[in-house]
Amino acid sequence: MTSIILDRALRARCDTFLHGHGPITPRLWMERMLAMPEIDLAGDEYNAGPGIDLLQGQVAELLGKPSTLFFHKAVVGQQAVLFAHRERTGRRLVAVHPKSHIAADESDAVERLSDIRLVRIGPDDAPFTLADLQGVKEPLAAVVVELPLRNAGFRTPSWEELVAIATWCRGQGIAFHLDGARLWETQPFYGRSLAEIAALADSLYVSLYKGLGAPGGALIAGEAAFLETLQPWRSRMGGNLYTAFPFVLGGLYGLRHFLPHMADYHAHAVALAEALATRDAPWAADRVMCNSFRLVWPVAAPALAAALARMAREQGVWCFGRVIPLPVRDHCFTEMVVGEATLAHEPGTIANRFARLLAAARG
Amino acid sequence: MTSIILDRALRARCDTFLHGHGPITPRLWMERMLAMPEIDLAGDEYNAGPGIDLLQGQVAELLGKPSTLFFHKAVVGQQAVLFAHRERTGRRLVAVHPKSHIAADESDAVERLSDIRLVRIGPDDAPFTLADLQGVKEPLAAVVVELPLRNAGFRTPSWEELVAIATWCRGQGIAFHLDGARLWETQPFYGRSLAEIAALADSLYVSLYKGLGAPGGALIAGEAAFLETLQPWRSRMGGNLYTAFPFVLGGLYGLRHFLPHMADYHAHAVALAEALATRDAPWAADRVMCNSFRLVWPVAAPALAAALARMAREQGVWCFGRVIPLPVRDHCFTEMVVGEATLAHEPGTIANRFARLLAAARG
Repeated sequence: MTSIILDRALRARCDTFLHGHGPITPRLWMERMLAMPEIDLAGDEYNAGPGIDLLQGQVAELLGKPSTLFFHKAVVGQQAVLFAHRERTGRRLVAVHPKSHIAADESDAVERLSDIRLVRIGPDDAPFTLADLQGVKEPLAAVVVELPLRNAGFRTPSWEELVAIATWCRGQGIAFHLDGARLWETQPFYGRSLAEIAALADSLYVSLYKGLGAPGGALIAGEAAFLETLQPWRSRMGGNLYTAFPFVLGGLYGLRHFLPHMADYHAHAVALAEALATRDAPWAADRVMCNSFRLVWPVAAPALAAALARMAREQGVWCFGRVIPLPVRDHCFTEMVVGEATLAHEPGTIANRFARLLAAARG
Repeated sequence: MTSIILDRALRARCDTFLHGHGPITPRLWMERMLAMPEIDLAGDEYNAGPGIDLLQGQVAELLGKPSTLFFHKAVVGQQAVLFAHRERTGRRLVAVHPKSHIAADESDAVERLSDIRLVRIGPDDAPFTLADLQGVKEPLAAVVVELPLRNAGFRTPSWEELVAIATWCRGQGIAFHLDGARLWETQPFYGRSLAEIAALADSLYVSLYKGLGAPGGALIAGEAAFLETLQPWRSRMGGNLYTAFPFVLGGLYGLRHFLPHMADYHAHAVALAEALATRDAPWAADRVMCNSFRLVWPVAAPALAAALARMAREQGVWCFGRVIPLPVRDHCFTEMVVGEATLAHEPGTIANRFARLLAAARG
């Protein structure tokens, strides 16, 4: 089940990109930032400055939350949230999904840097339900839901399920935290405002990179008094950057240039999944719940990786940098992320290309 | 003993700077980076990329160490070092100076994020000695020396003392780590090569900002196998940045443009301290051991702060952003940091200005 990572040098030589916003080079990032009016704001120092105020204020307003706090990295922001809930409640158990980033992708950070212990609930291939949560009989400090659950194929709970979980947590006096790494990207699927979704949670994380295309950065939203308790943790885990202006300017750029297109990305992803269903091509593993979905290829991973490398080399076209084997013979998957670069190509055209790619991989 | 912080908005309106490299605005930082040949290297992703390789390689060579590892922030790099020594030795005690950054300025990070406990040794106003260290009778995982000890007035042990500490640690099988936050700036005082200083330590941290003027960033140097054990800790504490190119490019810029002038900064600082000694002016609290020293003003802190603000407002001249009271009536201090901006002004001229400033503060 080890992924095959395609050679990055190949990507640098491509001129057509089907994936996400396409590659953003350091030069492009800087040129974009230099063209922003906010470039002439005083630089931030140690998490204070007019750019950070602007960013925090804009996101608080979008999410309808009293306050937000900037972090250079979500792993720090979300750990700070969990540590603060532990201090506040005296409890040290937190419920998460076994495939969530917190449980699966952060080198066991929260358990190695604190005495918090994770209770892993839910099946490997879908978000946990209220019933799963109610099966936990120990006192919880917090419950975390990741929107969407990337490692289960970008899947999210239904709106009703999400409301039920939030309501239950509130009733039990358990903090409910949303890992909204892809909240911007998921909002069009729910068809509710960002503020309606955010209102369900006591605290939530949103990302400045991924869909928003910044070089990095994150915000935690919630009550101002609660966010204040996160600040010492932010400092302890290296979040007191001397200056973070590239992340801050990048985030402001993303809110202005990418956020307004999230519904387009979702619609394009849905249309692509539909177009693929009419061809002898890979297929969307599930209902498309954001701008991204798992694409299942009925071919062995090394064969697909070889075909992708050939396409990049011979045609200058880049889509997937990673191919992941599936536990089914001659099947693998890739993650399809729709962004600005993808929008430049009709769903039918992409579907035809993927059909040809599958044929090439079959040899 | 609460510092008085001068209004930053005043600084933004100044056009003459006596302090450090002078203010670097986001625009200036980006323009500098865009003018570097390395801007067109492929961007780094998750701590890998040609810019990071270049930076790590250049610093390893300068320090004469087998390897270096990039961190976005020293608080993460140095904690990773201590955590790794704990894992390696099974010991959880680390000897540090009570005024060191690790003990005093990081919100008790290492003790709150791990079971490591700090043994604080040495007097408040000077580095600890080998004799102080030998007074610790419990088994140590590591000993940390900060070069120079900023909170004790930028003071460093003598070369002989430093060698003695390193030799003793080696004999005892205790890891010796140098917090070289200002190693570049201290090297001219020792008159030994960076590699000679670094050779004393099992591991050391050097900074990309401060003297090198980058927007942030740090490197840990040491044996490659040891540095590998730091990587999971780097990830846990938010060091796995999606991209860090502004810090990386800024570091490369600093090595090229500021590092060659460290001896000039030190000489200028020494000359300024000497010029001040001939006037009714503030005085250098100690022998000048790097580009920075404590300047003691025989006047109350609020009076000096008011005179500094007036100088900024009326003459557009900025030097100290912070005034710190001393536990002696009508005495306070500022930190004098000599950098590119300071070099533009003769020591005698600066001394005269400080003498006038003292007179103004006295009313």
